[in-house]
Amino acid sequence: MEFKSLIRTVPNYPKEGIMFRDITTLLKDEKGFRAIIDKFAARYEGWNIDKVVGIESRGFIIGSVLSYVLGKGFIPLRKAGKLPGETYSAQYELEYGFDKLEIHKDALKKGEKVLLVDDLLATGGTALGAISLIERLEAEVSEFCTVVNLPDLKGERRVKENGYSLYSLCEFSGH
Amino acid sequence: MEFKSLIRTVPNYPKEGIMFRDITTLLKDEKGFRAIIDKFAARYEGWNIDKVVGIESRGFIIGSVLSYVLGKGFIPLRKAGKLPGETYSAQYELEYGFDKLEIHKDALKKGEKVLLVDDLLATGGTALGAISLIERLEAEVSEFCTVVNLPDLKGERRVKENGYSLYSLCEFSGH
Repeated sequence: MEFKSLIRTVPNYPKEGIMFRDITTLLKDEKGFRAIIDKFAARYEGWNIDKVVGIESRGFIIGSVLSYVLGKGFIPLRKAGKLPGETYSAQYELEYGFDKLEIHKDALKKGEKVLLVDDLLATGGTALGAISLIERLEAEVSEFCTVVNLPDLKGERRVKENGYSLYSLCEFSGH
Repeated sequence: MEFKSLIRTVPNYPKEGIMFRDITTLLKDEKGFRAIIDKFAARYEGWNIDKVVGIESRGFIIGSVLSYVLGKGFIPLRKAGKLPGETYSAQYELEYGFDKLEIHKDALKKGEKVLLVDDLLATGGTALGAISLIERLEAEVSEFCTVVNLPDLKGERRVKENGYSLYSLCEFSGH
């Protein structure tokens, strides 16, 4: 199924000049939603993965379904102050500003293999911040996967230059 | 499978006197996570539901999996300023403060039947705010479901007194 056309582009959101790629129109369509999950599942079926980690908040939507389909536990990486237990945190640069992510210190065990999931890759700041938290717990990122990749924002290049594997389902040019 | 014991209680979070029921320890356990999804799926299999609506952010984790399992589209209800399209918003009272939820104006069609999902029911403020947004689009809430119900905070009573159906997987007394 051709799902890319179900992703809506909202011009000038969240600020002037940004073309926001909105996956809510894809998620709303049950066939489109199923198509992206099935594509991810087909790739990761049989991989040696211990946990699926999703990045708040849209990464929760994709990551939790993959967790269920692959039969692995789900770990949420959350914005600052949202996790109730003891955490590590990482600040990182976004396409438009700064943000902070946190992970529970007991979320992953040393040596566990992680599939890291988000909806979109832009500059790669969020992804690398997330990876740093996973590695702080001495777990390993098997791959980072997203629905949308915006290669012009160079996140793909940054992620790969840092030695990590990336899998995305579709690309858009520009912002 | 007995999943309730996998939910961790964090005392005095987010403030003194609150016993925070933390589902991340349940989600991390693949058997526990599967057990709760399978319980929900067993209930809703065969129901006449058009869409699954999840409340940001922990409601995304449960709601999106249910959406996939039931083969229905997923709609995220988000905190203020997070949805890029045209929205309606609702302010509501929380156990500790106020918050605002938004829905895309084109998220649901008139007459669509909705399963509303969150992780936890406390005072019911979030749930009733979410329901008001669904009804603003002239869609119908078939049922509101949560993993955890805190009946002492009277959310269950408020939801039911307002004429809505509630289904929760487990209860804790106190806050």
